[in-house]
Amino acid sequence: MRDAGLWIERYAQVRAATMALAAPLSDEDCCAQSMPDASPVKWHLAHTTWFFETFVLERFEDGFQPFHPAFRVLFNSYYNGVGDKHPRPQRGLLTRPSLAQVRAYRANVDARIAALVRRHGGDAALATLLALGLQHEQQHQELILTDIKHLLAQNPMAPAYLEQHGAPAGQGAPAAQAWLHFSGGVGEIGHQGDGFCFDNELPRHKTYLDPYELSSRLVSNGEYLAFIEAGGYADAGLWLAEGWDWVRAQGIAAPHYWRRDDAAPGGWSSFTLHGQQPLDLDAPVTHVSLFEADAYAHWAGARLPTEAEWEHAAHAPGLSQMFGHCWQWTSSSYAPYPGFRPAQGAIGEYNGKFMVNQYVLRGSSLATPQGHARASYRNFFPAGARWQFTGIRLAR
Amino acid sequence: MRDAGLWIERYAQVRAATMALAAPLSDEDCCAQSMPDASPVKWHLAHTTWFFETFVLERFEDGFQPFHPAFRVLFNSYYNGVGDKHPRPQRGLLTRPSLAQVRAYRANVDARIAALVRRHGGDAALATLLALGLQHEQQHQELILTDIKHLLAQNPMAPAYLEQHGAPAGQGAPAAQAWLHFSGGVGEIGHQGDGFCFDNELPRHKTYLDPYELSSRLVSNGEYLAFIEAGGYADAGLWLAEGWDWVRAQGIAAPHYWRRDDAAPGGWSSFTLHGQQPLDLDAPVTHVSLFEADAYAHWAGARLPTEAEWEHAAHAPGLSQMFGHCWQWTSSSYAPYPGFRPAQGAIGEYNGKFMVNQYVLRGSSLATPQGHARASYRNFFPAGARWQFTGIRLAR
Amino acid sequence: MRDAGLWIERYAQVRAATMALAAPLSDEDCCAQSMPDASPVKWHLAHTTWFFETFVLERFEDGFQPFHPAFRVLFNSYYNGVGDKHPRPQRGLLTRPSLAQVRAYRANVDARIAALVRRHGGDAALATLLALGLQHEQQHQELILTDIKHLLAQNPMAPAYLEQHGAPAGQGAPAAQAWLHFSGGVGEIGHQGDGFCFDNELPRHKTYLDPYELSSRLVSNGEYLAFIEAGGYADAGLWLAEGWDWVRAQGIAAPHYWRRDDAAPGGWSSFTLHGQQPLDLDAPVTHVSLFEADAYAHWAGARLPTEAEWEHAAHAPGLSQMFGHCWQWTSSSYAPYPGFRPAQGAIGEYNGKFMVNQYVLRGSSLATPQGHARASYRNFFPAGARWQFTGIRLAR
Amino acid sequence: MRDAGLWIERYAQVRAATMALAAPLSDEDCCAQSMPDASPVKWHLAHTTWFFETFVLERFEDGFQPFHPAFRVLFNSYYNGVGDKHPRPQRGLLTRPSLAQVRAYRANVDARIAALVRRHGGDAALATLLALGLQHEQQHQELILTDIKHLLAQNPMAPAYLEQHGAPAGQGAPAAQAWLHFSGGVGEIGHQGDGFCFDNELPRHKTYLDPYELSSRLVSNGEYLAFIEAGGYADAGLWLAEGWDWVRAQGIAAPHYWRRDDAAPGGWSSFTLHGQQPLDLDAPVTHVSLFEADAYAHWAGARLPTEAEWEHAAHAPGLSQMFGHCWQWTSSSYAPYPGFRPAQGAIGEYNGKFMVNQYVLRGSSLATPQGHARASYRNFFPAGARWQFTGIRLAR
Repeated sequence: MRDAGLWIERYAQVRAATMALAAPLSDEDCCAQSMPDASPVKWHLAHTTWFFETFVLERFEDGFQPFHPAFRVLFNSYYNGVGDKHPRPQRGLLTRPSLAQVRAYRANVDARIAALVRRHGGDAALATLLALGLQHEQQHQELILTDIKHLLAQNPMAPAYLEQHGAPAGQGAPAAQAWLHFSGGVGEIGHQGDGFCFDNELPRHKTYLDPYELSSRLVSNGEYLAFIEAGGYADAGLWLAEGWDWVRAQGIAAPHYWRRDDAAPGGWSSFTLHGQQPLDLDAPVTHVSLFEADAYAHWAGARLPTEAEWEHAAHAPGLSQMFGHCWQWTSSSYAPYPGFRPAQGAIGEYNGKFMVNQYVLRGSSLATPQGHARASYRNFFPAGARWQFTGIRLAR
Repeated sequence: MRDAGLWIERYAQVRAATMALAAPLSDEDCCAQSMPDASPVKWHLAHTTWFFETFVLERFEDGFQPFHPAFRVLFNSYYNGVGDKHPRPQRGLLTRPSLAQVRAYRANVDARIAALVRRHGGDAALATLLALGLQHEQQHQELILTDIKHLLAQNPMAPAYLEQHGAPAGQGAPAAQAWLHFSGGVGEIGHQGDGFCFDNELPRHKTYLDPYELSSRLVSNGEYLAFIEAGGYADAGLWLAEGWDWVRAQGIAAPHYWRRDDAAPGGWSSFTLHGQQPLDLDAPVTHVSLFEADAYAHWAGARLPTEAEWEHAAHAPGLSQMFGHCWQWTSSSYAPYPGFRPAQGAIGEYNGKFMVNQYVLRGSSLATPQGHARASYRNFFPAGARWQFTGIRLAR
Repeated sequence: MRDAGLWIERYAQVRAATMALAAPLSDEDCCAQSMPDASPVKWHLAHTTWFFETFVLERFEDGFQPFHPAFRVLFNSYYNGVGDKHPRPQRGLLTRPSLAQVRAYRANVDARIAALVRRHGGDAALATLLALGLQHEQQHQELILTDIKHLLAQNPMAPAYLEQHGAPAGQGAPAAQAWLHFSGGVGEIGHQGDGFCFDNELPRHKTYLDPYELSSRLVSNGEYLAFIEAGGYADAGLWLAEGWDWVRAQGIAAPHYWRRDDAAPGGWSSFTLHGQQPLDLDAPVTHVSLFEADAYAHWAGARLPTEAEWEHAAHAPGLSQMFGHCWQWTSSSYAPYPGFRPAQGAIGEYNGKFMVNQYVLRGSSLATPQGHARASYRNFFPAGARWQFTGIRLAR
Repeated sequence: MRDAGLWIERYAQVRAATMALAAPLSDEDCCAQSMPDASPVKWHLAHTTWFFETFVLERFEDGFQPFHPAFRVLFNSYYNGVGDKHPRPQRGLLTRPSLAQVRAYRANVDARIAALVRRHGGDAALATLLALGLQHEQQHQELILTDIKHLLAQNPMAPAYLEQHGAPAGQGAPAAQAWLHFSGGVGEIGHQGDGFCFDNELPRHKTYLDPYELSSRLVSNGEYLAFIEAGGYADAGLWLAEGWDWVRAQGIAAPHYWRRDDAAPGGWSSFTLHGQQPLDLDAPVTHVSLFEADAYAHWAGARLPTEAEWEHAAHAPGLSQMFGHCWQWTSSSYAPYPGFRPAQGAIGEYNGKFMVNQYVLRGSSLATPQGHARASYRNFFPAGARWQFTGIRLAR
């Protein structure tokens, strides 16, 4: 392995960033699970470590012994090829191992990984798995934030993940919205070059696009509020049939975390990582489902982009808020690219087996670690998911 | 309207074909509903009539009066633009109106439609709606057969929809399977020409296809049985994650309607419209979900085709069983074609609002009325649906 | 068997009465099932016949052959000792056997029973089972009416079971309410004498009663309406905890079948066997759950009687509406009397195995066949049941 | 208030005993909730404190200020008269307040209660509420043990609440079983004398009992195992109908916490507060539902006692294991005694509103605090509950 020192440094940085996210939280905060879709922070800390132990140490370490034999099952998320899994909805009941023990697990695996990297300089297979493990860890860094936000929001005391000092800066009034035109034709999408990518971004392949337009920026809270005030949630004609059923069955009337609040200037506040805050009308709307994104687009006389349109346009000047604000729903269902081949073995379960009944989101959010996303990156969630930082970019 | 006589004849033929399907059934058979996804035959008879009354007579008939004011709600399937709807899972509780009254409703509307057509010769809008109404009626003809099959299968006495006289002919051993090669490139899909099509088949548009191969024929029962005997339903690695959950939660171990049966030559029988019958190993496998189709393909070292691949190849020599055997699952989620525009008004709810979390099926089945399907036709069902005549054509 | 002729006559009368109840109904009406707790009329017709076939013919008839082998399972309600049972919630899917076939089944069994009675004059065991079978049939006569009422009420067209000719007579203003005093002490309850009773009415046994008072008549619709208008359904303090959860989860705000109706004199109408009718404020309130009965009693400064109080008082002068109006909830859970012994064999499952989580109702309703009930009769339903004719008599 | 010093001491003792129960647990252990019926230990610590704050301090303390305004809702268990309640199934999501804050809450209220007692010497109303608060706290001491046992049992690592040092003493072979005869007649049950009792034990009243017999001791694990080995869980004829449905729907085949274990001498182990342990065949069977207790009794040719039988016999020589082993299911539904009057105000919700669809248990368990129970004590749970220490005493 070339550059063992660089790998050790990179590894240490990413792993430390995870621990830094957990730093403001108590042992109790780290143990609880607010819904089956979300996981406890402690579980994220352990599972990302399990990933390195199972897919790196077990393969490369001489005389491998697991840190704790029970962890193989407890912290296996969904890899049938590895064996049994603890049931997902019961992750919050694992008061043991304690957070302290999970920290010790991390430290143990970290030391063994460092030793391994020093020993196996030049092993390309090891480098590939280390890279995947670190990207995986970064995905869980974002989930730590979205999951803890969801947990704290269940508490009537609305505790902040981080106290905010001083008034929020805000982002100022958004730039005027404009439509950027793309002429389409046969183009290519999918990852290109030597850098890391997930298997679902491959192979790069040709696709045909009709001419289309993309909005220069994301839909703002203020614009979305106009949709609410125009009765958008009560007009069946704007919604996909399944979306309309969802709105009625769940009593949905605003984005997740929004609350009517007479004390707030615009009449609404929302729950944030800094606690309950007045709604910033200039900021991009977030925590909306695909159903809401689609209904809004319908109301606005537009539509959602396909993932190919989004990627094809991603580097065009004039497009703002593509990365670092919120994930952007596309109308593309999550499906394999032509010629897609998942890896052999359990690691091949990483992405491919989820390619049904999910929709692709593009871009990245304020919770995505710096440097993690790229134009070809394919995030995916079910159409009704709202606890991620998900927003809307219009197309037509 | 040109050709009023032809329209009257065509209308009478299609409407009579519907009644012929109900002929072997008792009033009780026609009233019951076996699951929320299926509808009573009586309801189908009334709803297709409601379609003509609501979208044709109400618009074109002078001094329009509804046959019965309550029917507007009772037999509205899903058109929010028309108004309230009777809840779908309760269709089987509508013992009134009686089957005799529904027959009278059909006769009344049929007479008024005939009068209308005679009066409005040359009206293109009327012709468009009549054509849609008849195509709609044909779709319900297929549903009458799949829904009554599902109902009768719930009965431990396994009654036949039609008694079979003499041994079933069978279709003989299937032709040898072959792979047909297609070189791909930029092609066009979507409906072309002057004939009728549904709005979801438009607009015809360009698409890019990588080279691909399609199987010359459908997967047979015998081939599918080999998958079962090889442990296909117990091997998580073959399944989409949601498919695996579905298999385990529902205890799925064979196609719908299959039953182990020591008395049958191959050890299996299946419930058919002629009652319980030994499984014909040569016939195409049917009543499988997308999950099963995908797992089978995976096991066979192949994949499902996209809808574009299927349509692009549809007329190639060497492909058999494209139409008239069973609908063929594709890996394409049901989505609008570029530039898709549903019709204005309630009729626009026909197709567009279902374009989420469903998968496209191509071809047609043995239950599809003659002349109804075509290469650009897009049928669609959720990934777990099995009560339709759904089968598998492999691609790679 | 003494009095074979009398038995034959009695049998014929009861069986004919059942058919008379079905006479106003179509085949479709008789086939549908509105909820798992209710059964189709056709099923009632078949099951009561099955009872005679299984418990009488199978035991006494020489060379017994079942009318149809599948019926043993299809029409077994809940007798594990007899064997498999068709799942209760799917009774409405049995479009076969047809109503005509069930009528033939009844005729066949009726003829065989008559022949049997003629042959076995003097057999006491046969007489016991015949008596049980006829009482059983009478219980199902009442269920036919409550179940068909429930089914027709699901239909937005609110069809009448029987058309009413002329204005309903009404019962006139109820007598003034009075409290009747009972001094209690050691008394006996349970059936006495030679007449028929169910096993759950035995053995007659001593019980101790504190002094108590019973209301001279049932609570009227007008009185219950005062409870509603006083906010009874919104005052948690009046309700049992489980009742309050029930009210909120189900959105209960009035007795079952009541509907606010501006066109009705008192502002309410209710669905009846004669269709939708203005609410008769003078009639006893009915279709209330135990939860509602208990909350009303609490609001009125009273309580529900125990079953022992009710029975002990049953023949006291001054008590009206004890029989023939509606079943009266008691606070007594359904439990075995001291020394209770169910019969040997499958017939012993008749009553005893239901003695948990149900509450006893006393009296009888307008739907109870003449001569069926008595002071020691114990009806029973879960606390939330409302589709029976259930009402309220207060105690204190 | 007489004896302020004694009250202060008694209060301090009971409150300290609660904290001692939590001592072996981590913050994480104290926060998690394993099912809606169970509560987190932290919640128990806070709720018992809330009880004193709400029903004692708020009424008696001058210038009362709540410790924290949000706690009024968060730690209100079920008192509608006090106001809103945090939803029970979400108690495990309250990672804030922290365990440390709840300890501070306890210390604060403890100090204020002590000051109050010193100031209000001689106030009988205060003494009544203090006594109730301490009895209430003792009830929650038992729940802390049963709830934490349930939580730890969910963990595949089977952690012990308390490590056991040395082999368990065991209780030795149980005494030979004998039947004690009671002649019945008119007797009295209900609490007698000046000592504390709950409102549901009053008023003492007469009841009539037929002659009966009670078993001298509880059913042992070994005896219950014989029922299992005889096929008790597979024989529908032994079960109440609802019990049989429960057995089949939940797949019940042994008492809760039992597990087949080839390594254990008798082939079974069970999860205990000391972790997974071989099953002690001599100890009383526990963690059985009313359904199981009733089926066992049926199989053994006996029945469950009524609560009046149990209480009437409670002090007879020759009865062992009446207290301190496990709660004993009776066949009596939980109902008000004749003349029962709950207290005025919210405190009246303590017992009375639960008197439906629950069954009375008598005696006390190994987890019941010393001195808490008595012969007239009425514990109650739904028929399917198994996570309490519930066992079987036979009657006939």
